[in-house]
Amino acid sequence: MSKEYKTPDETKVEMTELVLPNDTNLLNNLLGGRLMHWIDIAGALAASRHSNKIVATVALDSLDFRHPIRCGEMVILKAKLTWTGRTSMEVKVSVFAENLQSGNIIQTNEAYLTFVALNKEGNPIPILALKPVTEEEIKDYEEGKRRRDERLAKKAVI
Amino acid sequence: MSKEYKTPDETKVEMTELVLPNDTNLLNNLLGGRLMHWIDIAGALAASRHSNKIVATVALDSLDFRHPIRCGEMVILKAKLTWTGRTSMEVKVSVFAENLQSGNIIQTNEAYLTFVALNKEGNPIPILALKPVTEEEIKDYEEGKRRRDERLAKKAVI
Amino acid sequence: MSKEYKTPDETKVEMTELVLPNDTNLLNNLLGGRLMHWIDIAGALAASRHSNKIVATVALDSLDFRHPIRCGEMVILKAKLTWTGRTSMEVKVSVFAENLQSGNIIQTNEAYLTFVALNKEGNPIPILALKPVTEEEIKDYEEGKRRRDERLAKKAVI
Amino acid sequence: MSKEYKTPDETKVEMTELVLPNDTNLLNNLLGGRLMHWIDIAGALAASRHSNKIVATVALDSLDFRHPIRCGEMVILKAKLTWTGRTSMEVKVSVFAENLQSGNIIQTNEAYLTFVALNKEGNPIPILALKPVTEEEIKDYEEGKRRRDERLAKKAVI
Amino acid sequence: MSKEYKTPDETKVEMTELVLPNDTNLLNNLLGGRLMHWIDIAGALAASRHSNKIVATVALDSLDFRHPIRCGEMVILKAKLTWTGRTSMEVKVSVFAENLQSGNIIQTNEAYLTFVALNKEGNPIPILALKPVTEEEIKDYEEGKRRRDERLAKKAVI
Amino acid sequence: MSKEYKTPDETKVEMTELVLPNDTNLLNNLLGGRLMHWIDIAGALAASRHSNKIVATVALDSLDFRHPIRCGEMVILKAKLTWTGRTSMEVKVSVFAENLQSGNIIQTNEAYLTFVALNKEGNPIPILALKPVTEEEIKDYEEGKRRRDERLAKKAVI
Repeated sequence: MSKEYKTPDETKVEMTELVLPNDTNLLNNLLGGRLMHWIDIAGALAASRHSNKIVATVALDSLDFRHPIRCGEMVILKAKLTWTGRTSMEVKVSVFAENLQSGNIIQTNEAYLTFVALNKEGNPIPILALKPVTEEEIKDYEEGKRRRDERLAKKAVI
Repeated sequence: MSKEYKTPDETKVEMTELVLPNDTNLLNNLLGGRLMHWIDIAGALAASRHSNKIVATVALDSLDFRHPIRCGEMVILKAKLTWTGRTSMEVKVSVFAENLQSGNIIQTNEAYLTFVALNKEGNPIPILALKPVTEEEIKDYEEGKRRRDERLAKKAVI
Repeated sequence: MSKEYKTPDETKVEMTELVLPNDTNLLNNLLGGRLMHWIDIAGALAASRHSNKIVATVALDSLDFRHPIRCGEMVILKAKLTWTGRTSMEVKVSVFAENLQSGNIIQTNEAYLTFVALNKEGNPIPILALKPVTEEEIKDYEEGKRRRDERLAKKAVI
Repeated sequence: MSKEYKTPDETKVEMTELVLPNDTNLLNNLLGGRLMHWIDIAGALAASRHSNKIVATVALDSLDFRHPIRCGEMVILKAKLTWTGRTSMEVKVSVFAENLQSGNIIQTNEAYLTFVALNKEGNPIPILALKPVTEEEIKDYEEGKRRRDERLAKKAVI
Repeated sequence: MSKEYKTPDETKVEMTELVLPNDTNLLNNLLGGRLMHWIDIAGALAASRHSNKIVATVALDSLDFRHPIRCGEMVILKAKLTWTGRTSMEVKVSVFAENLQSGNIIQTNEAYLTFVALNKEGNPIPILALKPVTEEEIKDYEEGKRRRDERLAKKAVI
Repeated sequence: MSKEYKTPDETKVEMTELVLPNDTNLLNNLLGGRLMHWIDIAGALAASRHSNKIVATVALDSLDFRHPIRCGEMVILKAKLTWTGRTSMEVKVSVFAENLQSGNIIQTNEAYLTFVALNKEGNPIPILALKPVTEEEIKDYEEGKRRRDERLAKKAVI
């Protein structure tokens, strides 16, 4: 209630999806767009968990698709808050593909998304601060702040 | 490679779903059938992870629906192996509903499913044994064996 | 209007589904969870038809998956009321798979589900009584009562 | 095996669908296109059942949408063969909407579709003849033949 | 604002869909019902664009399926108003299939649908007139009027 | 056949989608992830049209979500090639939201995606060159080359 902050660990989200035929192209590989869809949901759930508010996607940082993911494989998405502002927050989503037959797991993507918390009228509303704890979380937080400044600078140019 | 068993912890699965309008009835509560669908997928992923095989659902134990889950809530499914036979295995799926606005989490269901591992011709194929480690896992294993005997006895009657 | 009961025959439901690629696993067999989803919908429709109310799934009895159902096959679900209490009712769903090429039909499952009738606030509301007519319906009604007592006894233990 | 014909009754299909939010427009009424989709599936299942072949839709006769169907209502589709040629066949699909709260049922549509039976290479393949039995079936058969002649005449003009 | 009519060109709609596994039958060809669904959406969007109202499908003229469309092909739907009455309007939807590997495009269907504009209570509401401009549009308009008279005559018979 | 290049205009794609309840959050606004999914499909269709090959998403440039899009609105996606390399190509997808009641259209997003052309074994395969024609296309081409160099530089750093 009177809490003043949350740690990244308290609100992290793990999502697991099975790649079905309709998610794939003619080579039986996962469509990029379906993966983006899952990344956005995982990120939004973590942002909602942190803010206890309805959230909307504000920005997605550039995203690489390094490895094809096959039909029948399992996709694991791990979402974790990296930075918070007054009403917006950044989430890192790490994506892993696991071949259920071999047990091999590889990381296929890493995405950074920004969400804004909204009240019921759809206007931005202040959120609790994030308190990074581990060394990695503190580094993520610093970089999150830097990425946010870059986004603002880019916007100013346009 | 030369591994002889796996622990329940090595193959547990966490799945997170957001309840969308099409998953709900006219009261905006999650349809029981949609939840059963998710429970089965979570269980099958854990069973595949343990066996490294394609698996098929063989049985679902009786299942209670204690609490309505609302549209917009987050459903978390945790699946964990409890018992293994020669070609079949039992998985426990614990279901939690989290209200993202209040942060409240309640356990809504606990399901036991049995899966069989299959080769590419669709025939049963032997799997690695499960080695329960914690006290709770050992208890789950004993009860899993008992539940399986009950299932066989029931089948014999029919 | 002034009717005091309904017979099982008046509210039975027949549902037919075609198994599509996204409903199947890597062996092209219907996923257990998709079938559970259909079973729940068929049962809920029969329960709504009997009670003329919104209904929610309360319990699913143990369920066996005896036969694989193939992609492209037709699934027929027949739902029929077996027993009614004051606000809850039991439905039997019989599942058949038909191979459209050979014309062969086999029964693959038999499920018993309990539903509760709800008013617009989501609270249980009394329903019309079921009047079994045929010998089989009377037997189903007696067994439905027994299954319900077992469920209550089990709940009491927990 | 040595059978020479089938009656309409032997291959009729009953399909039941629940109208969900995603099937409706902003007035909460069922989208015409979703209903057409269900009509086509019901017809194709009856045609497959008669011919024991894979079938493809060849033509849909003009179709009226007389009554809005609401979200939460139950749609019942009854498909029945009316006429067969050498490789093609006509199916009548009658559509009913049932309000689960009031129990009212109205017929909302009646559609005539033509399907062709196909072998594995996708070429037309001869089918068993239809033998109408009841007076209504004999009338439907005559009219089906007439509708087919009209379709051919129309095609010839184009 | 004070506009008195719109031309067909102002409200035409182009929709593009990729044929996915779940849209196809066992021969990997697009299901007729899925295509009907897309045709209805394309037509409804053009009718909404013309009327700036919610619209409902009133009638679909007879429809031929001339060519199989394959999984992985691209379907292009072009919808254009042909005729308007006081509250209803006719839309022509032309369907093309494009093989992305060969670049070949063929027209597979041409459909005529009638929509009615509705107010928020679901009652018909007057719409802006259509003003055909090109020679083809003027011909389409005349034929649209004729098709509408035929529909009314047919209804009168029934 | 003996063609040596294609212009951006020859392979542009227009996709139109209606926002349905399941595509929206609790404020009835389109989910960011669903929009990303559509953007990826539109881009992939244009890339396939240019290359006449199966394509896979390689990269998505940073993406802003400027305006909420409402349930019941129409989303128009216009995809156009901007740059081609030996086996990869860049596509610009411009997204517009149209309110069907008011007729208002606003541009909501602009996305740049990179796709690679693949042979049936899933390996990169050379594609036809893009020949920009208009001033805007020539500018887009230059910037596309610059964006590609930035992507490579960024990758080299990692």
